[in-house]
This record gives sequence, C-alpha cells and structure tokens, in this order.
Amino acid sequence: MMKYERTFNFSAGPAMMPECVLEEIRDEMMNYRGSGMCVMEMSHRSAVFQTIIDEAQQDLRRLMNIPDNYKVLFIQGGATLQFSMIPMNLMKNGKAVYIETGAWSKKAIAEAKKVGEVIVAASSKDKNYSYIPDCSDLDIPEDTDYVYICENETIHGVTWQQLPNTKGHVLVSDQSSMFLSKPCNVSDYGMIYAGVQKNVGPAGMVVVIIREDLIRDDLGDLPVYMQYKTHADADSLYNTPNCWDIYCCGKVFKYLLSIGGLEEMHKRNQEKAKILYDFLDGSKMFNGTVEKSVRSLMNVPFVTESKELDAEVVAATKAAGYDNLKGHKSVGGLRASIYNAMPKEGVEALVEFLTKFEQERG
Amino acid sequence: MMKYERTFNFSAGPAMMPECVLEEIRDEMMNYRGSGMCVMEMSHRSAVFQTIIDEAQQDLRRLMNIPDNYKVLFIQGGATLQFSMIPMNLMKNGKAVYIETGAWSKKAIAEAKKVGEVIVAASSKDKNYSYIPDCSDLDIPEDTDYVYICENETIHGVTWQQLPNTKGHVLVSDQSSMFLSKPCNVSDYGMIYAGVQKNVGPAGMVVVIIREDLIRDDLGDLPVYMQYKTHADADSLYNTPNCWDIYCCGKVFKYLLSIGGLEEMHKRNQEKAKILYDFLDGSKMFNGTVEKSVRSLMNVPFVTESKELDAEVVAATKAAGYDNLKGHKSVGGLRASIYNAMPKEGVEALVEFLTKFEQERG
Repeated sequence: MMKYERTFNFSAGPAMMPECVLEEIRDEMMNYRGSGMCVMEMSHRSAVFQTIIDEAQQDLRRLMNIPDNYKVLFIQGGATLQFSMIPMNLMKNGKAVYIETGAWSKKAIAEAKKVGEVIVAASSKDKNYSYIPDCSDLDIPEDTDYVYICENETIHGVTWQQLPNTKGHVLVSDQSSMFLSKPCNVSDYGMIYAGVQKNVGPAGMVVVIIREDLIRDDLGDLPVYMQYKTHADADSLYNTPNCWDIYCCGKVFKYLLSIGGLEEMHKRNQEKAKILYDFLDGSKMFNGTVEKSVRSLMNVPFVTESKELDAEVVAATKAAGYDNLKGHKSVGGLRASIYNAMPKEGVEALVEFLTKFEQERG
Repeated sequence: MMKYERTFNFSAGPAMMPECVLEEIRDEMMNYRGSGMCVMEMSHRSAVFQTIIDEAQQDLRRLMNIPDNYKVLFIQGGATLQFSMIPMNLMKNGKAVYIETGAWSKKAIAEAKKVGEVIVAASSKDKNYSYIPDCSDLDIPEDTDYVYICENETIHGVTWQQLPNTKGHVLVSDQSSMFLSKPCNVSDYGMIYAGVQKNVGPAGMVVVIIREDLIRDDLGDLPVYMQYKTHADADSLYNTPNCWDIYCCGKVFKYLLSIGGLEEMHKRNQEKAKILYDFLDGSKMFNGTVEKSVRSLMNVPFVTESKELDAEVVAATKAAGYDNLKGHKSVGGLRASIYNAMPKEGVEALVEFLTKFEQERG
C-alpha cells in the first residue's frame, strides 16, 4: 500500500508524475512562496512568474545540455498543432522526408501533406509498425527541407536505437513519449519537440527545442500563433502561456536534476523495462508485439493468444489496482506505459501479478 | 489578514480564483476521489476523466442556458489562436465586419486580414478606445460572413452594453474578460469564445460556444487542429486536451451554480464595481479613463494627473499587499481588474487605501 493509496497507473499519457512533485504543488497551492497567490492566479507578466518560467527553461537546458544556438519554446495545442506548424515553418522548398513507424508519424504525415510534398522514404507499415526500418542509406532528394521521425511510437511501442542518416539534412524528432527518458545529443537535431503529458507534466503544452537558424522571419502571413518566431521572439510569452504547466514541468526538471540527471533516469528506466521484458520473454501466456532490438523503454505492448483472454487480464489488473493497461485499439492486447515517474515497485508488482495470473491459468 | 495570507490580486489575467475551489483542488491533489491519482495524471480516455469533462460541459450549459444546437468546445492556444481559427472557419464568402474597440479587437482584425476581407465598420480609435461606437445602424454588406466584437476590452476597460445590430448576420464575440460575469443570451450569438484565464481558471484553454450550423465539414485542407469540426466531432477529445484546466474550470462552474448562478454573480459584480467607480467619481486625485456609460464591471482603468504619481500609487498599493495594479502600457496609469473571484472585501480595502492615500497627499 502506497502513501495516499496511490494507484500504479500504466496510462500512455497523461501519466504518473513524481509523488514528491505533486506534494510540493499541493503545499504551494494557496500561497506560492509568500506571493499570496496560487501559480494559477499569477499574471504571466509578473516578476514572480518570470522567475518560474526562467528557471524552467534554465533547468531544462542544463538537463539536456542544450546548446546556446537552440531556442526552448513552450507552445499549446499538443503534438497535433506541431504536425502542422512544422511543415508550415520548415518547408522552404516545400519538400520533406518522413519515416512512417507507427500511428503518430502517420498522423504527422497526413498533416504535412496539406502543406507540401511528403516523401515517405521508409515505412514499417507492412508488419503493423512492429519494427524500425533501416534508415542508414535513404534516398533523400537534395532539396529536402527536413527528415522527420517519431522517435518513440507510443501506441506501437517501438523506439529508434540509431538516428536515421539524414545525409546532412535537418532532423526533426517527435520525442513526446520518450522526452527526458535518457540522455540526448541535441546537436544531432534541427528540432525536437514533445508533448509534456507523457513523461513530464500535465497535458496542455509542448516543449519545442529548435535551432535558431531554422526560425524564419519571412512567414508573417501565417497565423501569428503558428509562427515559431512569435514564440521565440517573446520567450514563450507572446500571449498567455500555459503557466501552470510551465510551473509543474519546471518542478519535474528540478527533480530530475536532483536525482542525477538523464544518465541516472536512463539507468532506472532500463532496469524497469528489463524486469517487464524479461518476464515477457519467459512467459508462455504473454508475448511482446515488437522486434526485440527496437523495444521501447517507455511503452510495452503485449498480447495473449486471444482477445478474450486479453480483456480478462485487463479487467483483473484493474481490479488489483494496476490501471490503464488496455492496449490501444489499433494494436489490441495490453500496453504498460512505464514512464520516468513509474516507480520500479510498480513494474515489479505488475510482473508479480501477471506471473501469478499465468501460473493459475497455465 | 486573509486565511493563508492571500493577496488581493488585481491582475488582468491570469487572475484570482475562488479560495474554496483552490482548497478543493489542493485536497484532491494526491488522490482524486479514490482514483489513486491526481487529475494531472489521468488518461483523457479514462472513465474517471470522462465524467469530469462531461460534468464541466453540462454545468456550463446549465449556467449559461446554452441551447442544444450549440456545441461547447475546449481548445488550446488562447484567444490568439481563435483570432485565426475564426476567419479560417467562418469566412465562407471571405468577408467579415469587425468593430474596433481596443487592443484585443485590433489584434483580431490583424489576424483576420491574413485570411480575407475585413471591413472595420466602426472604431473608437480616435479617442484611444475610451468608448463604444454606435452600432445600431451599420453599413453591413449582404455577403458578410459575420460581425465580430470584443465584448469587454481588458486593456481599455470598455464593455458593450447593447450588442451591435448585425442585420441578421452572425455575431461572433470575444467574451474572455467578462465570461460568466453576468447572464448571457447565447441565442444572440453565432459564436462566443473566452480564454478562461481571466474569469474562470488557469491559463491554457479557450471555451468556444458555437452554433452547430456554423461548423463546416468542407475544410479538410486546414490543419486538423484549426478546424472546429475536429473538436466538435470528438467532444474536445480529438487529441489530449488541457485536462487540468477542464477540471479546474468545472469546479468554478459548480461554484457559480452553488451561489445562485450568473444573476447572483452579476449582482455581486455590480456591487463591487460600484464601490470603485463611486470612489473614482468622487475623487480629485484619481480619474476613470472611459466613458461612464460603457464602463467595464471587470477592468477599471484610472489615472492620476501625472505618470510619476501613477507610479508612486502602484508602488504604494503593492507594498500594502494589493498586487498587479499597474495599468497596461498602452493606457498607462492604474487598472484594477475585479473579476468574479475578487471578493467585495478586496475592492473595499483598495478603495479605503486609495482614499487614505489621497487624503494624505490632498
């Protein structure tokens, strides 16, 4: 039994947040550090909030070692708005290469096609997105504006182990469901973005990390909110941002720094994932659905032999206090999302439960 | 001294929230009603969150008496994104009439001009937006798609007392800084929208109330997030919404219902505003900046005879615990925003302070 009787929540997002962060937020609710107000009530133009947003950005920069020639932006509208903003802002020649590895890259492709020419240079659609195609020697036209990947597919549970060879072109990566789960060499990318509701804080914000030279100033005809320049020039304060999310994410950034940064987080994530994958590899009842070499450390889809048994397991886990284990409808079966904030004890408890379930039925 | 030593916060937004709502949120932080999780951690596809969003919508419908042929949508990106979404979705003939009454209608005009023809049929720019132009007999072309107003100008402190005569055309209103401050006859409008961070909850969400026949299904080429149809068809759950904001705003809707709805809220707002305006009318040192007949119940800008004295008063109020009274740079002076959640005691205390200040200097 955890303090407050908190559930082990295996949701694909929104998802668990560190308990100590939630406690801090609770304790600051009625009066944030002597300001006499809750962060939700603060003017985004006030000195007290400016410190919150400044620290959030600085801490993220430290955590990821973000070079000075990259801007950090906090934007609303989720990855869905980014699917459109990316081609609208980055397609100079009207041409981009996308790699299709699951549901989320597919959605990004659909939106980019409304803006310009999309070349799907590789796809794993033939095997229901259960692997990552070889992208070491793609045919990339010279005038391609960027190469786009979804670095961890939340629904299909595959993750890139090695970035594609872009042959000198700009790489754009959707890191939503793996953001801050391991060290990241930002210089390998032109732009990284992540909806924060999976691995950081509450839904309602995307973090965009973009190389300054990619921020164009000749796009004044675009809706003002859709221009990266708008957000970059105003340090994410052109209009009222999601202040609460910046506050909550800022606390998670500080928490990650306090435990030893992304190296330590990666180590813990590897340990947690190993427990679950080792179980799946030894089980006769449960099987992982993706190629072992590209298994996600964050989203672990698995199935039994039948839909009926899948449903029975989901119901049993829910009754036992392990929530949100139902797989996405496009893959079926079960999915355990074990993001940064899922404690090792949660994964151990789940594996223990599934082991027992299998023994009783086996 | 208030409980928790909370400040009277006169911010133009984000702004005060009801103390009892914040207490509830705090108490539900670690385990929302036996779910074992914080609302920030909940899957937006879970039954427990579905109840939260359903109740929020139902309570808002009850509060505003929203007719069945209107959809209620929760969208990210602030009023700024609406400035673009409105013309992109509602300009069928590529033509709209805008009334310019202050900074926010001006920004809406700038964005609409990127999409189609904008006819500014009336403006109060000549007197620094200190009045509302007569709009009882405007020249509105037959093929105008809609007439747009900002019903309460947050910066300039003017509010519409009587809606414009649209001559049968669709009326679109930005109610951000007056949303839920008084009863509203929704049928008078084609669309109402409001950023919630002024009169309801934390920044990061806009409530859109739109007549169903205005939601077009021939706009598939627009970015999917920018189509009202996307949000309407999925009941605001096409992608992950700002779940936390829906939760917080839902609590404020329930609070407003509990005190007697918008009639009672309006009565209280009139009382509060009268205290401040009566003081200004009697003062020799402080003067309101707008025409009396269109004074806002929410945003009260006022000035002294000099910028130096203005600044001195702002500093003195801040030191005395009345925060965010500095006027917007485009108007100068001071501005007291006295939204729904500002208690009467806050306005009384401010008036007492200003009275004393004037006596000491007079």
